[in-house]
Amino acid sequence: MTTIDLNCDMGESFGAYRIGDDAAMMNLITTANIACGFHAGDPVVMRDTILAAKARGVSIGAHPSFMDLYGFGRRRITGERPEDIEAQLVYQIAAIQGMAAAAGWPITHVKTHGALANMAAEDAGLAAACVRAIKAVDPGLVFVALPYSQAMRAAEAAGLAVACEVYADRRYDDNGMLASRQMEGAVIHDLRQSVDQVLSMVLDGRIPTIGGKQLLVEAATVCIHGDTPGAVGVARALREALAAAGIEFAPFKKPNLA
Amino acid sequence: MTTIDLNCDMGESFGAYRIGDDAAMMNLITTANIACGFHAGDPVVMRDTILAAKARGVSIGAHPSFMDLYGFGRRRITGERPEDIEAQLVYQIAAIQGMAAAAGWPITHVKTHGALANMAAEDAGLAAACVRAIKAVDPGLVFVALPYSQAMRAAEAAGLAVACEVYADRRYDDNGMLASRQMEGAVIHDLRQSVDQVLSMVLDGRIPTIGGKQLLVEAATVCIHGDTPGAVGVARALREALAAAGIEFAPFKKPNLA
Amino acid sequence: MTTIDLNCDMGESFGAYRIGDDAAMMNLITTANIACGFHAGDPVVMRDTILAAKARGVSIGAHPSFMDLYGFGRRRITGERPEDIEAQLVYQIAAIQGMAAAAGWPITHVKTHGALANMAAEDAGLAAACVRAIKAVDPGLVFVALPYSQAMRAAEAAGLAVACEVYADRRYDDNGMLASRQMEGAVIHDLRQSVDQVLSMVLDGRIPTIGGKQLLVEAATVCIHGDTPGAVGVARALREALAAAGIEFAPFKKPNLA
Amino acid sequence: MTTIDLNCDMGESFGAYRIGDDAAMMNLITTANIACGFHAGDPVVMRDTILAAKARGVSIGAHPSFMDLYGFGRRRITGERPEDIEAQLVYQIAAIQGMAAAAGWPITHVKTHGALANMAAEDAGLAAACVRAIKAVDPGLVFVALPYSQAMRAAEAAGLAVACEVYADRRYDDNGMLASRQMEGAVIHDLRQSVDQVLSMVLDGRIPTIGGKQLLVEAATVCIHGDTPGAVGVARALREALAAAGIEFAPFKKPNLA
Repeated sequence: MTTIDLNCDMGESFGAYRIGDDAAMMNLITTANIACGFHAGDPVVMRDTILAAKARGVSIGAHPSFMDLYGFGRRRITGERPEDIEAQLVYQIAAIQGMAAAAGWPITHVKTHGALANMAAEDAGLAAACVRAIKAVDPGLVFVALPYSQAMRAAEAAGLAVACEVYADRRYDDNGMLASRQMEGAVIHDLRQSVDQVLSMVLDGRIPTIGGKQLLVEAATVCIHGDTPGAVGVARALREALAAAGIEFAPFKKPNLA
Repeated sequence: MTTIDLNCDMGESFGAYRIGDDAAMMNLITTANIACGFHAGDPVVMRDTILAAKARGVSIGAHPSFMDLYGFGRRRITGERPEDIEAQLVYQIAAIQGMAAAAGWPITHVKTHGALANMAAEDAGLAAACVRAIKAVDPGLVFVALPYSQAMRAAEAAGLAVACEVYADRRYDDNGMLASRQMEGAVIHDLRQSVDQVLSMVLDGRIPTIGGKQLLVEAATVCIHGDTPGAVGVARALREALAAAGIEFAPFKKPNLA
Repeated sequence: MTTIDLNCDMGESFGAYRIGDDAAMMNLITTANIACGFHAGDPVVMRDTILAAKARGVSIGAHPSFMDLYGFGRRRITGERPEDIEAQLVYQIAAIQGMAAAAGWPITHVKTHGALANMAAEDAGLAAACVRAIKAVDPGLVFVALPYSQAMRAAEAAGLAVACEVYADRRYDDNGMLASRQMEGAVIHDLRQSVDQVLSMVLDGRIPTIGGKQLLVEAATVCIHGDTPGAVGVARALREALAAAGIEFAPFKKPNLA
Repeated sequence: MTTIDLNCDMGESFGAYRIGDDAAMMNLITTANIACGFHAGDPVVMRDTILAAKARGVSIGAHPSFMDLYGFGRRRITGERPEDIEAQLVYQIAAIQGMAAAAGWPITHVKTHGALANMAAEDAGLAAACVRAIKAVDPGLVFVALPYSQAMRAAEAAGLAVACEVYADRRYDDNGMLASRQMEGAVIHDLRQSVDQVLSMVLDGRIPTIGGKQLLVEAATVCIHGDTPGAVGVARALREALAAAGIEFAPFKKPNLA
């Protein structure tokens, strides 16, 4: 029996603003990455999301970002020192770690958000800052990172546990990077193709690339999108198709309730 | 020998904005209350302030606030449920607790800021929310509260340790409340009178009130202002005058480095 | 033939966050109050909302607020001088006035939002600050205000044109104020009763109060809610019922395209 | 007699935070660029700065920026469409235009701030967006731009008036760009050399470059820094030295008080 984790970014509402159908999505996933107030989320949303995850046994982690509410953390921002980004990450991870511990449902991991994640995948200095921040808060946390990214390399170099994250609906280039959304065919719209790609990655440990290669991968978790129209339906269909192929679902790490 | 703690609000700079002469003030105090990013402060300022305090052996604590950068946390904001304020406090306390622990200099206490502190002194429901937030993060933290306040009562009712905070430069009314700044004579401008008031509170355990009463007080810490013009000079003069009267200075609690 | 204006708060999305179904609502109303970036809205949302209103011939106005994105402008904030609130209002009104003029669809009015509107209805000093702000930007703008409010009195005293705004779904007390939502029966859930109340106010110039009085009113515009679930359906039903009663719809003021 | 304008960025305080000695600087300059609330400034600061400039006859303009209070507008932010940046600029320019008109001291120009200015100097698409924004608000406004920049070219192509801005304390490369601060000798620390460079640019219409070239320039205004330590002293010395060399001072444009 092969098991896989399904993760989704959650708790991205802010104040009066709602985004995503967290209540429905929480029933489909095994791991939730919770926004920490910098690109989305606020303490009330965070508390409610932590409690909702706990009620369903969904593992949770920090989903920190650049300080960019207006841009939802998707804008690339440059001009800060890596050690200052590190301080911003320690702040965010510590904030949710404390909230989660207070709720009796500790965090298990950290997954960086949006532009920060994209930049840390490419930039070794920024990736190292992310790894230092996680270890500073708790060296037992898992870093969710893309295969072949600088983030993964930095974690491995520092002895930080990594959960390798793959996408069901995005193609990969021959370097193992996500093909740009601008490229024709970069996004998979067909459920069957998505399922096949996931099965290849999970059962065979292979990423089929756009160039026809088969790259090695130890996929630990599949990212499910939550903020697109129809996201819940797509997620449900994917989960059911994977289940039909004999895959079971479990978080890559369970909270330490000791 | 009588010892007293001198505390000051610190780390209230933000981004490119500097406020207060933290470097000078850090040499005069024994406890620093560090802003947590809601009314002032940011992760970089917090990190630097934590490290500066550690270098001088100054105890540190969280100085959380309403989410109000524009108003520096001084505006009274109503319309939120106490449990939502509680979530905001847990977030802030946890954020700095994690940053401080990562720096090897754990926080010892929590002191609420500005309008939140004023409102929690008057409102039992809000005071109870503050106490719940502190205990949720770490029941070993000390709550810095004004004498005769709802905050103090809520802490005592919940079994949370309290450090009673007094002012050198503010008069008290017959209920033990700070006399309104609008009232003539409410602010003490004369150093000798400030010193006498502190000595009365620290050596005799008595607050002399505007109405001529002597209220009981167990003063644990004296608040020093840091963001007014000439603040450093006033603080130094007060410290020297208290030292000349035989007072010694020590934090009301030292960080637990175990 | 009696005509009435239907107004709705619009453009309250922010960044990646959507709120309300502006596209549908824009077809049902004759006047849009557009958020100015302080409690909601951003320049991109404002531009798009202005253009959508222009395309449908819907009159537009400024919908300024306290600086409170997190609280969506619904939190009462105190501690600022009226002249400083005035500056914040001039800023917001000028910003949208300039954007609207650039788009060839000038604003016609100002309607304050949320807690600011509630406080300006009660507080003569704050109401006067609102009136000064509007006149400072353009004395030809109309102030949308509640009947019997300090806002209305301040406008009349200053010679500023007022459009009196009434609610279809809220009861009034004997002083002409909106009955508190906490009070049983304060909110009208029945369409027929809403229509009757509007017809009384529009055709007879009378507000029926909870205490059984009939207060005089010169209603210029009926407020339609846009951010509640089912808002579009409720608005459409109300509009159709008023039309069936012989009411026509037109903005209380058209943009000056000279 | 040769006259030159001295401009300085002003009104960059925010809430409780003060930055720069605007009161002193206002006596030394002829044109003030006023922050519009996105990287710095708030409506109260803007109002006070407008009134202070009016009292001294100093011309004023908008100093818009990316929405980046934390980074003081100095961080490069990418990922937004030029037309959305344009909307942000229209908003900011219109806000201060309305405030200034209300105060009886209309703005004369627009100077972009920090990272936005640097990016608009290099990027033709962004420069064109800036020009469209200015023209949309008021085609009579002057665009303050660096020589040989895309901003200047875009303005000239669109028929928008430009005031060419030069620096007293920065060296230029052979393309007419400011030499990077990272480069040795890029910043002029010697007053005499600063004065000589200004005299060359103002009297001879020549920029002496690092590579030894003499580039043509029609300098309309010299930028004076206001937020560095000792800024007032440096500005006063520069002004006195230029005066001693026979230069007179006047704004490149006076407000239209018609």
